[in-house]
Amino acid sequence: MAEKKQVEAITGRDEDFARWYTDIVKKAELIEYTSVKGCMVIRPYGYAIWENIQRILDAAFKATGHENVNMPMFIPESLLQKEKDHVAGFAPEVAWVTQGGSEKLEERLCIRPTSETLFCEHYANIIHSYRDLPKLYNQWVSVVRWEKTTRPFLRSREFLWQEGHTIHATAEEAVAETERMLDVYADFCEQSLAMPVIRGRKTDSDKFAGAEATYAIEALMHDGKALQAGTSHYFGDGFARAFDIQYTNRENVKTYPFQTSWGVTTRLIGAIIMTHGDDNGLVLPPAVAPVQAVIIPVAQHKPGVLERCGELRAALAKDFRVKLDDSDNSAGWKYAEYEMKGVPVRIELGPRDIEAGQCVLALRHNGEKRTVPLETVSASLAQALEDVRSGMYAAALANREARTYDCATVGEILSTLEARGDGFVRAPWCGDEACEDEVKEKTGVSSRCIPFGETLAPGSRCVCCGKEAKHLVYWGKAY
Amino acid sequence: MAEKKQVEAITGRDEDFARWYTDIVKKAELIEYTSVKGCMVIRPYGYAIWENIQRILDAAFKATGHENVNMPMFIPESLLQKEKDHVAGFAPEVAWVTQGGSEKLEERLCIRPTSETLFCEHYANIIHSYRDLPKLYNQWVSVVRWEKTTRPFLRSREFLWQEGHTIHATAEEAVAETERMLDVYADFCEQSLAMPVIRGRKTDSDKFAGAEATYAIEALMHDGKALQAGTSHYFGDGFARAFDIQYTNRENVKTYPFQTSWGVTTRLIGAIIMTHGDDNGLVLPPAVAPVQAVIIPVAQHKPGVLERCGELRAALAKDFRVKLDDSDNSAGWKYAEYEMKGVPVRIELGPRDIEAGQCVLALRHNGEKRTVPLETVSASLAQALEDVRSGMYAAALANREARTYDCATVGEILSTLEARGDGFVRAPWCGDEACEDEVKEKTGVSSRCIPFGETLAPGSRCVCCGKEAKHLVYWGKAY
Repeated sequence: MAEKKQVEAITGRDEDFARWYTDIVKKAELIEYTSVKGCMVIRPYGYAIWENIQRILDAAFKATGHENVNMPMFIPESLLQKEKDHVAGFAPEVAWVTQGGSEKLEERLCIRPTSETLFCEHYANIIHSYRDLPKLYNQWVSVVRWEKTTRPFLRSREFLWQEGHTIHATAEEAVAETERMLDVYADFCEQSLAMPVIRGRKTDSDKFAGAEATYAIEALMHDGKALQAGTSHYFGDGFARAFDIQYTNRENVKTYPFQTSWGVTTRLIGAIIMTHGDDNGLVLPPAVAPVQAVIIPVAQHKPGVLERCGELRAALAKDFRVKLDDSDNSAGWKYAEYEMKGVPVRIELGPRDIEAGQCVLALRHNGEKRTVPLETVSASLAQALEDVRSGMYAAALANREARTYDCATVGEILSTLEARGDGFVRAPWCGDEACEDEVKEKTGVSSRCIPFGETLAPGSRCVCCGKEAKHLVYWGKAY
Repeated sequence: MAEKKQVEAITGRDEDFARWYTDIVKKAELIEYTSVKGCMVIRPYGYAIWENIQRILDAAFKATGHENVNMPMFIPESLLQKEKDHVAGFAPEVAWVTQGGSEKLEERLCIRPTSETLFCEHYANIIHSYRDLPKLYNQWVSVVRWEKTTRPFLRSREFLWQEGHTIHATAEEAVAETERMLDVYADFCEQSLAMPVIRGRKTDSDKFAGAEATYAIEALMHDGKALQAGTSHYFGDGFARAFDIQYTNRENVKTYPFQTSWGVTTRLIGAIIMTHGDDNGLVLPPAVAPVQAVIIPVAQHKPGVLERCGELRAALAKDFRVKLDDSDNSAGWKYAEYEMKGVPVRIELGPRDIEAGQCVLALRHNGEKRTVPLETVSASLAQALEDVRSGMYAAALANREARTYDCATVGEILSTLEARGDGFVRAPWCGDEACEDEVKEKTGVSSRCIPFGETLAPGSRCVCCGKEAKHLVYWGKAY
């Protein structure tokens, strides 16, 4: 009964995707609202997902030579204003501190919406010679953007992220860094989050404020809407010029260096929910699941059952994040609870299993059950987790492929979306911002990115004006 | 020459302790100042120390059943005001956000100086039944306190910390938690930071705002000044009453639960510097040193030297944080550089060592050199690091013992400090706040704590008024 009740408490995914989403973030105990709009408590189960994301990405950053630092959260107004595109992009949405203790501040301080300006001030202090380059920095912090419309993980006024900031002697090195970190993000999303992504470049209208080029990874959610999952920016020497960062090169000439920045946020947790979740709740990729396997004793009052389950937990805990639920809730309640929480594998162990020297592995993402020998359960679980990962990836990819539409005209975009629902629209574009705007206005899809590794068919015409196309573009309705 | 120059660049420790300290934080590249007073950049080498502190403490918190969460940084003014002692203690030193984007806020938000009020709001939302207790939470975040006088790590307007927050069904459980976490801190300081601490209770005048009791660990710095290294607070049910947090107990009666909080900060890095540093720079405890051993090739242009050093690095990297400096700086420059950075062990390896199948381990804290066989260098290094740790601890303890003075009268305090320099004064106290104030006013030392495990001699008299003493108190000049 408890099982039934709990499952009923979530809105159906296809009935109302937005309500289904907020039901999950609450019922899976990922977040709780606070009295400050757009600011949430990330609860232990949600934060443990973020800790796993951090652990994997942080190792990848360090493996590519990056070091962690910590910058202040405050940016003086005059510092924010040094790079004109940057301030224009961010000033309208920052929170301002005007008072410290009983003292009114002489200059307002904004809470960082991003930290380029702080890193630039620091670079100017510490970079003097070519020997000081490159600097490959990252920080794990929270940032604040005063959004009008907010949704847990997807758009909040304060959110957690990492921001990488690097500075290089040459443009080539900086461009290579921008590309490398996009690949680190893409590999992480595909391998650890089982979420396929399109790698590409943003059109000029959608670049980061102050960037020469913004690269992004774009994922398609189950409902056919697009989600920008990570960005990597190439700045050229624009920030260096604005902040007067110069170094003496090998020829003893004062030179401006080149910069990048890149970031992913707690939004990735929203992406996981909307890529993999189903009517029973969350479905977590094994690499970031706080609990990878939960052991549920069957007929746990029978002699020896709890003891054997405890032994199994201890044996598996060496290699996996495993939990034994020996509470007095019914097995049915437990099944529903850990389905809601998206635990990748449920291990059922009862008296008959013990007698037969086996247990049952139930896979969360597709309901498959496998009876495996207890003797080799560790190997079976490792295999099951890998199968879960690849199965989740395949399902997400199949959804994206089924929802990627090649269109040649604005009319075709409209009729395709009407007939087949939201998705990625793949269509040529002439490069003119007016056409980009017109597509968005008429169809609701905006340019997501110009994909890497996909080329325009010869003779392609702009989906909007019909003139010669310059780029293939993925369009979509964006979160 | 470079060696000479670099060492000369630091002020002598006994010449001007305060300048010596700021020289080290800059020259060891722990921090850089920013244009916002009291806010600093924690540079990679400094941040790596903090990451090691975090890693060890986080594991200790999780081993004692705590879970990490993340609260917003903003506290609405009305929420901060709910507990009267708490707001009185913190409101005078918070930073206020009054504007979000272009909109003037209807209610000011302060940036958390600490998060009791946020946790209380959250508890009130999620705690309903005895089954929901206890909650054992922690978060790693930064907080802001608008200090007038600031010093890197010791007192800054923004600083990094962890704050544990727990809530329990009974007062006994909460008191036990408060004590347990003080022990976790003390063990960490003594074992991982090689820093002896006094565990004790704060007098009422020095309690955390809103606490029933504050426990603290107090360490003595090299200059004889005291540093509060961590605190653990017992709140009773005061916050629960102020925030109307109630749960239904097993007897189905609405009941107020009991709370604690506890924290340590980046101040610990300041404590490490001032406990262990010397005239050559930083001296880092092996457990938190970003580099535990640095390999310096001797005569590195000779054939085979760099190759053998590389092999050594690879072999040691499995078990230690080890670095090979194969730059073309001189060996002397490198010695001075890694002494400045406090690397616990330097490994020297040259052609003659290679021929003899040995290398030299030089211990940073006491200059000792050990010639050891290359074959068993890993075991020798492990032993050396443990000897460094225990040697550093013993030296710090000897300094504290030499600077702990038992005094019976205010006059004796004055003459002892005059004759022997700053240190801990151990003296009986009657428990009257007027005497506490008078001691501070007349001698400059304030009460640090009432130590656990040390008892008052029978018939002891208050150091100030001469009446019967109630407590033994450690007094000191505090950072």
